[in-house]
Amino acid sequence: MTTTKFINVHDEKLTIEQWGNLIESLDGKNMDAAIFNVDDKDDREYDAIFLGGGAGGRFGSACLRAMGGRQLIIDRWPFLGGSCPHNACVPHHVFSDCASELMLQRTFSGTLWFPNMDGVVTSIKDVVDLFRRGRTGPHAMMNYQSKEQLDLEYVLNAPGRIVDRHTVEVAGRRFTAKNLVLGLGARPQALDIPGSGLKGVYSNVSLVETLDYEPSDTIVVLGGGKTAVEYGSFFSATGRRTILIVRTKCLKLIPDAEIRTYVLERMKEQGVELWEGSEALRIEDDGKDGVEAVIVRTPDGEKRIETNFVFTALGEVPNSEMPARALSVKVGPSNEILVNSQLQTSVPNVYAIGDLIGAPMEMFKARKSGMYAARNIMGVEAHYEPKDFPDFLHTHYEVSWLGLSEAEARARYKNVVIIKIPPNSPDGLNAALPASDRTMLYAMAKPHMSGYQKLVIDGDSRRVLGAHHVGYGAKDAFQYLNVLVKQGLTVDDLGEMDELFLNPTYYIQLSRLRSGCQHLADL
Amino acid sequence: MTTTKFINVHDEKLTIEQWGNLIESLDGKNMDAAIFNVDDKDDREYDAIFLGGGAGGRFGSACLRAMGGRQLIIDRWPFLGGSCPHNACVPHHVFSDCASELMLQRTFSGTLWFPNMDGVVTSIKDVVDLFRRGRTGPHAMMNYQSKEQLDLEYVLNAPGRIVDRHTVEVAGRRFTAKNLVLGLGARPQALDIPGSGLKGVYSNVSLVETLDYEPSDTIVVLGGGKTAVEYGSFFSATGRRTILIVRTKCLKLIPDAEIRTYVLERMKEQGVELWEGSEALRIEDDGKDGVEAVIVRTPDGEKRIETNFVFTALGEVPNSEMPARALSVKVGPSNEILVNSQLQTSVPNVYAIGDLIGAPMEMFKARKSGMYAARNIMGVEAHYEPKDFPDFLHTHYEVSWLGLSEAEARARYKNVVIIKIPPNSPDGLNAALPASDRTMLYAMAKPHMSGYQKLVIDGDSRRVLGAHHVGYGAKDAFQYLNVLVKQGLTVDDLGEMDELFLNPTYYIQLSRLRSGCQHLADL
Repeated sequence: MTTTKFINVHDEKLTIEQWGNLIESLDGKNMDAAIFNVDDKDDREYDAIFLGGGAGGRFGSACLRAMGGRQLIIDRWPFLGGSCPHNACVPHHVFSDCASELMLQRTFSGTLWFPNMDGVVTSIKDVVDLFRRGRTGPHAMMNYQSKEQLDLEYVLNAPGRIVDRHTVEVAGRRFTAKNLVLGLGARPQALDIPGSGLKGVYSNVSLVETLDYEPSDTIVVLGGGKTAVEYGSFFSATGRRTILIVRTKCLKLIPDAEIRTYVLERMKEQGVELWEGSEALRIEDDGKDGVEAVIVRTPDGEKRIETNFVFTALGEVPNSEMPARALSVKVGPSNEILVNSQLQTSVPNVYAIGDLIGAPMEMFKARKSGMYAARNIMGVEAHYEPKDFPDFLHTHYEVSWLGLSEAEARARYKNVVIIKIPPNSPDGLNAALPASDRTMLYAMAKPHMSGYQKLVIDGDSRRVLGAHHVGYGAKDAFQYLNVLVKQGLTVDDLGEMDELFLNPTYYIQLSRLRSGCQHLADL
Repeated sequence: MTTTKFINVHDEKLTIEQWGNLIESLDGKNMDAAIFNVDDKDDREYDAIFLGGGAGGRFGSACLRAMGGRQLIIDRWPFLGGSCPHNACVPHHVFSDCASELMLQRTFSGTLWFPNMDGVVTSIKDVVDLFRRGRTGPHAMMNYQSKEQLDLEYVLNAPGRIVDRHTVEVAGRRFTAKNLVLGLGARPQALDIPGSGLKGVYSNVSLVETLDYEPSDTIVVLGGGKTAVEYGSFFSATGRRTILIVRTKCLKLIPDAEIRTYVLERMKEQGVELWEGSEALRIEDDGKDGVEAVIVRTPDGEKRIETNFVFTALGEVPNSEMPARALSVKVGPSNEILVNSQLQTSVPNVYAIGDLIGAPMEMFKARKSGMYAARNIMGVEAHYEPKDFPDFLHTHYEVSWLGLSEAEARARYKNVVIIKIPPNSPDGLNAALPASDRTMLYAMAKPHMSGYQKLVIDGDSRRVLGAHHVGYGAKDAFQYLNVLVKQGLTVDDLGEMDELFLNPTYYIQLSRLRSGCQHLADL
């Protein structure tokens, strides 16, 4: 066992800036110094130890604490918040913001105030470096908020070792609790082909941790889901030839076919190459442990793509090995820890939450599963099953959806009415509306780029069945709109709302144009 | 009377592109050619003539038509949609998008892919020209949609003359109807000081209609409300010294004091000069009918500002003169036509809608008042009074609000709880959160610029009383959130929602962090 330094912060009030400095002095450098924010004067037993201080562990802890319980978070990183601010949601949003900005710059290259971008390849490493310097900010905020505002106890920068279902050892100290909540997250699915261990093969995690050179002008992305497209769109927007190698079809998860087509067409228009029905066979090295080329099986035969940068986005694997070994909790076919709707594992008093319990690996599920575990621990029986939730992804655009696609609706309802914009017309997408914040220049000069949106309605009950949006500024709305749709929102309800024009979702005004109709018709 | 050419489009199906070409051939050029989309084979009497085809007239017509009625819109412009796409909401959004983009470019000047913007003054005229070329797109769409999808009848590019309360003459033809709906809109309040008639004094209308030179490096804006700030922020973002001359206080309409302070501080940080308690006394000419300087009374005495460009944003005046003269409808103190909650004027069978009936001159009110007038005309008694609506404006940011400010809430409730981010801390605004789409680069490098938001809650009932947001991507959400708040949304309801992280509004997750508390506390 190594010597461990104890940094006791419990009786200090660190500012956000001081937290930032402390985190930066430790992160990835001093794994032998543990941060202790533990109330040693409190002799109550812990109601729960949360192993992992990511979204689930932190929100679960907050809930448990708010309900009057005592909790302890243990995390190997020197900050709370988990992978989201460190290598997942936050960098994804940074890169997606850059993709949107670069698409705008390239579209208006050499006009207005935009520089000529013809043939300009912008740096990926500079954006990664900017993120690396900046991510301490959210980290520091999580630690500050958790201690000063939420009154949580935690031990950071030290891995916890499960001794038994009530005991965890961390930095040489043993802590016991009535319950153990596992929130150990997931990791990128590793690539398993010859050459996958070479430097130059990255996941979203290793990209922001280890990139130390500028990728070549051609980039290969393996995968066709959210992460592949989010990062691939950014790589493409930097001016690089970007090829997505997709085993089946790209972005199958977008439910509505027309929306999916619009999204894919805009990606292709920006130069992203989608090689569907293809598979990477092996990666060739450059003789110096780096990547020189990727060999791909395509429907047209084997192809060799020269590149020094391969990005893998093959899904996420729950980190269930350690708890499975220590506690023999039951694990499912995707490596996820199996839980019931009370977030209880197969072992009494052991709960699991977040990405560790499998799909959907989304922020709301991580946080809410933590909260529901806390309720059950505190004696308030509560069942959680994520369903009927809205969803989104980024290309160069923001894409949001909820409820049924047009095809799903037609399979279930006789009288489906579609309200969409641009409308069906001989002009196709060559219409300046929709347009709103962040798409106004497109609307004025490149109308087919200003977005696409659709509302799916049951014409008989007049209820909204689904909503779909490509553009910007609608993702947040989908959170609230989803609640209204689940309440039974109708075209007539929408027509009575107060829009903030030019609103990113045109649903209110378009519905109003039809709400007077006894028999609803498409628009 | 002039000779009028009749362009009969009723039996043709013009595409959006064809509509665009026709509008461009007429707009501001051929006032003697009227577009007729009238069903001469239909011998039913019109239920209503809508005088003015802006938001109110068009949506009112759509509603009346949907309810089985017959309507006719008459508008002086060759397109429907009114001032919004021509010189109001749409150009405002174009300029505000540019302001946001330019702030980003200047903040990251010389880093990443951003060019060095030090001392660079970008063209205002180029953006105006871009808008002028582009606005035909939305115009064409309105005409297409209204005819092909909504089945409306209209006469365009010809002013209507009211003969009596059932009769309007347009392009030499007389039309009669059971009812007349006035939707003639409003115009910018004219400046009334010496020199206000000089070329170089612009409103939002004349700016996009007549600007034919590049404004000087100093710009004077008269006003401190939405329009003044929206256009002033854009002028400032182009790199010009921009001075807002405000009679009292700038942006008094932002209800929450902290939010207002954040907004004003960011404007000042971008270089906008706010001269509050000041008033323009006269405008000096340059000897060629242009502007040379503005003389301003300030709290520190009279000042002279050299500029060739003055932008006035002094409010809007309803265009009630013509109908008041023709019909003797009653007019209120702000030149607005007085209506009851059924949109009926003082003259039987004459309704008035939209900006013509006064504040709030917002899109939703224009459209909904048209819709409610239509219902009453069609025999469905319906009362409309705009209230408890969300609101927004643009600086370089998007600012949205609904419900009560913190101070308003404290005046009415004993136990007000505030949830906000950045939180109260010794670090003030120097915290990287909130952050979301369009603010990620700020969050990483200039955290105080990444936004500010607040939820105002009654701690006893746990209900949300108000929400306030500065950033981007939340405006659309406020439309739906407002409905939920009016339903009685609580902190606990928010905690159960599914966020799309990184969501522009952090209300869901922040509420969740407190929803477990029996006694709510600030966060």
